[in-house]
Amino acid sequence: MQTKIVVVGANAAGAKAASKAKRLNPQAEITLIDRGHFISYGACGIPYYVSGGVAEVNELMSTPVGVLRDANFFKKVKGVAVRTDTEVLGIDREAKVLHLLDQGSAGPSSIPYDRLILATGSLPLVPKLANVDLTNILTVKSLEDAQLLKGLAISGDSACIVGGGLIGLEIAEALQQKGMRVTLIEMREQLLPGILDAEMAALVEKHVRQQGVTVLTDCKVTGFAGKGAVEAVLAGERKLSADLVVLAPGVVPNVALARAAGLDIGATGAIAVDAAQATSDPDIYACGDCCETTHLVTGKKVHIPLGSTANKQGRVAGINAAGGQASFAGVIGTSILKVFRLNAGKTGLSETEARAEGYDVETVISPAHDRAHFFPGAKPIVLKLVAERSTGRILGLQAAGEGCVDKRLDAAATAITFKATAEQMSQLDLAYAPPYAAAMDNLIVAADIMKNKLNGQARGISAREVKLRLEREDDFILLDVRSPAEHAESGIEGARLIPLGMLRERLHELPADKEIVAFCKISLRGYEAQRILDAAGFANVKFMDGGMLAWPYPVRS
Amino acid sequence: MQTKIVVVGANAAGAKAASKAKRLNPQAEITLIDRGHFISYGACGIPYYVSGGVAEVNELMSTPVGVLRDANFFKKVKGVAVRTDTEVLGIDREAKVLHLLDQGSAGPSSIPYDRLILATGSLPLVPKLANVDLTNILTVKSLEDAQLLKGLAISGDSACIVGGGLIGLEIAEALQQKGMRVTLIEMREQLLPGILDAEMAALVEKHVRQQGVTVLTDCKVTGFAGKGAVEAVLAGERKLSADLVVLAPGVVPNVALARAAGLDIGATGAIAVDAAQATSDPDIYACGDCCETTHLVTGKKVHIPLGSTANKQGRVAGINAAGGQASFAGVIGTSILKVFRLNAGKTGLSETEARAEGYDVETVISPAHDRAHFFPGAKPIVLKLVAERSTGRILGLQAAGEGCVDKRLDAAATAITFKATAEQMSQLDLAYAPPYAAAMDNLIVAADIMKNKLNGQARGISAREVKLRLEREDDFILLDVRSPAEHAESGIEGARLIPLGMLRERLHELPADKEIVAFCKISLRGYEAQRILDAAGFANVKFMDGGMLAWPYPVRS
Repeated sequence: MQTKIVVVGANAAGAKAASKAKRLNPQAEITLIDRGHFISYGACGIPYYVSGGVAEVNELMSTPVGVLRDANFFKKVKGVAVRTDTEVLGIDREAKVLHLLDQGSAGPSSIPYDRLILATGSLPLVPKLANVDLTNILTVKSLEDAQLLKGLAISGDSACIVGGGLIGLEIAEALQQKGMRVTLIEMREQLLPGILDAEMAALVEKHVRQQGVTVLTDCKVTGFAGKGAVEAVLAGERKLSADLVVLAPGVVPNVALARAAGLDIGATGAIAVDAAQATSDPDIYACGDCCETTHLVTGKKVHIPLGSTANKQGRVAGINAAGGQASFAGVIGTSILKVFRLNAGKTGLSETEARAEGYDVETVISPAHDRAHFFPGAKPIVLKLVAERSTGRILGLQAAGEGCVDKRLDAAATAITFKATAEQMSQLDLAYAPPYAAAMDNLIVAADIMKNKLNGQARGISAREVKLRLEREDDFILLDVRSPAEHAESGIEGARLIPLGMLRERLHELPADKEIVAFCKISLRGYEAQRILDAAGFANVKFMDGGMLAWPYPVRS
Repeated sequence: MQTKIVVVGANAAGAKAASKAKRLNPQAEITLIDRGHFISYGACGIPYYVSGGVAEVNELMSTPVGVLRDANFFKKVKGVAVRTDTEVLGIDREAKVLHLLDQGSAGPSSIPYDRLILATGSLPLVPKLANVDLTNILTVKSLEDAQLLKGLAISGDSACIVGGGLIGLEIAEALQQKGMRVTLIEMREQLLPGILDAEMAALVEKHVRQQGVTVLTDCKVTGFAGKGAVEAVLAGERKLSADLVVLAPGVVPNVALARAAGLDIGATGAIAVDAAQATSDPDIYACGDCCETTHLVTGKKVHIPLGSTANKQGRVAGINAAGGQASFAGVIGTSILKVFRLNAGKTGLSETEARAEGYDVETVISPAHDRAHFFPGAKPIVLKLVAERSTGRILGLQAAGEGCVDKRLDAAATAITFKATAEQMSQLDLAYAPPYAAAMDNLIVAADIMKNKLNGQARGISAREVKLRLEREDDFILLDVRSPAEHAESGIEGARLIPLGMLRERLHELPADKEIVAFCKISLRGYEAQRILDAAGFANVKFMDGGMLAWPYPVRS
């Protein structure tokens, strides 16, 4: 008898699971069910469809050679039966039957299964706010949403986006490119909370503001106003006019079906699964945005919905459901975002996350060109490396800049997966030629600085801390060791100039007992200054992490 | 008493060693000696200076903020004394003294050392050929060479480059961009021998030919003809007219000084060093292109001169010479090249190298877009993954294409360093968003195919082997499973068309006992066809590795 495998949800995870199961076990009878009309589409491409970068919605539903991934495609090419517009009403685990409601049919029906795969995805979180049901207040999850949003993206109109995470930022860019006046509202104190540390998020915020987006952080939306259609976003006393509102405060796993069937739900709120992607019922698997996974740095369960993870989990669920053996170890929290010309992301733990987990950490902020500085098109990026102080183990990397950050994130993601130390990272044989990297890649430099910090040779202090000390009027010397020309062009109010090349001759101008914080453009010279002053017997010298390039605050012009 | 550290050679490794030693031990007295006039320059940038991409030679000798790294810079900023135009005549290891000849002085002098660091670099190999001393026959190593070459790069003139390795290809592009008629001559059967396998090198050759460069492989230069200046390159019967010849057959480590001093020279011909970069004399270190290192995959000694490695070794030598403790483990043979619009490189072992080392290997060729296929600007790249069959351990990755290959090389370099298996590589949490990768990154796809091949589900055959069988008129069916439109546009002569979507219905058209080789554009559909035919009882079905995108031979139009 043929094994009957039913897959619920026909996007990344479900489509992958069904196809893989069929390839592994061609005798299996596989049915892929989705309540939507469109299946197997690249939801991550929605912002680019809205902006017009991707012209046709079909491009998001096609294979790389342009074949539409519709029901016929799955039947003919993949050997998988597809039922779209079909709601799963419930799972009878005893009888191993799914109860269905097909929009095109007269009444409910049912389908038996030997193995069931749940790939029910996630749902956009809709905050319970006054008048949230006004028209032109949207979430962006499905292709239908995308088409609606594109129609409402009218040049000259104003749009408010609620939520300054990955999707909020991508939609902000898309709507700005359509000529809208865009306001991005985030209730937390920074953009990309839970992804980037504050000073890295500040670099993103600065860039987004420069592109003309109004950014409101620390701003809690309390409701909406309008008659029929939304006219304003209310945030306490504030009233922000809006012709369009996009709700992007996050997503929640869609676990209604699993919960109703009595499957275990994890503390994250997502379906609990083991490494085989099996739920608490050994004949039911789950994969993709609806289930949780393991964070390989902390060992804890997490819910980090991503298309890349969904595909990996779908493959594993498909193999196991089809009688094979596969497992998925987990993730390390890698995320990336393009917003306007800026690339930003992280892998592993941020400093905030690492400290919350109880790690004693050291951090490095290292700005530099993304390739040989003389190579045409080289652009700056800023790396923030986080390591465990006692072992030197790399816990995380954050990166932001107009240059290539994804490459550094991928190499770091790999290194973190294998529990690399700063010493090991500093010796990686990364690809070098001037069009791709400096002779010392940004990642190698950051790891070398980390080694210098861990062994006490380099002592950094964050831009944030320097700003606090300046505001408190602490008794310290902020020492600019750049060239007079660089100093004249812009700098930090209150800093004193001694170019690095003059420092050895002008030591007598500095008090040996006072705290000195040296900085330059990226703080390589700042570090050199610290070493020179250390050697001359100065007692308390540091450099400012990342120099001017990582200083997100106003500058003296 | 101050420790006296003398460093011979003031480029990547030497400059790094001297600077690091001083930062670690500010009391040390450090002297950096170079026989050239220019120091601390980015020799890897020479091709871009010749092409005009880098306008001024000073850019190659400046810091990222534009400060010239000259003797004054090293004195003022780094605290290191520099003596340029100074030849080291010999090392008296007994007396710990170097004998010098300064071009500006009347006669020889000497300088004592406590610790000596040799960073004497490499020398261009000059083949002993008839009339090799004609003018306008150049090597390209120093800035002086670069300035000479740039002056001779006259639009309309013809240039022959001897050697189809990294430097030969980079110079070919530079001279072509200056309007020269360029011929690239390689004695081996393929470009980039020792770096890429033949079929990957064929992709590079195809691209370079498309840019108008004449490529002659399997062509051994026997001499030169001309009166005073070169007029022709002789290759057996062939006579190739040339106004300019660049010799780029490779480099050799510059070990004359070390050898004369009785230091151990390794089997590679480079200075033997331990992990501390110490030579056979514990007070003498070596770093950079003059010394050998360990290949971390094979465990064998290798000489792979690269600026990235030189910097890492220089740091280690500097620390140890200054009384600290550091070690350098080795390299894994990562190389990368931009030539015209193509990016190509490798990390770890090629298939050729792996087989020569005695590994039983499996290979995967996987072409795909470098980001989400719908994202504007997505470009194809071809990956070749090599793994050990018994363990699944990844031994190497090669990559070529107009898209982003360096990112995949860096992630693979990191994975290979940590002895990752295909299973582990397939689960890496790489950064995903449509501007950076497909939901399944090229590296993940390649690793998944490798897993399918290792467990016998996927069976590939190389394009080269298919071509051989076609030429031998073997009795097999070459099955094109692309769409009729793709088939009509171009294809392989002799292939039979059954689009994948029709295959399940048209099985009866194929003989079940005959060998069938399926292919498509990238061979994902080819693999699907193999699985469909396997399930239908066909006995001997394979797919062609990499499909049309990895087919480097002529196509039917």
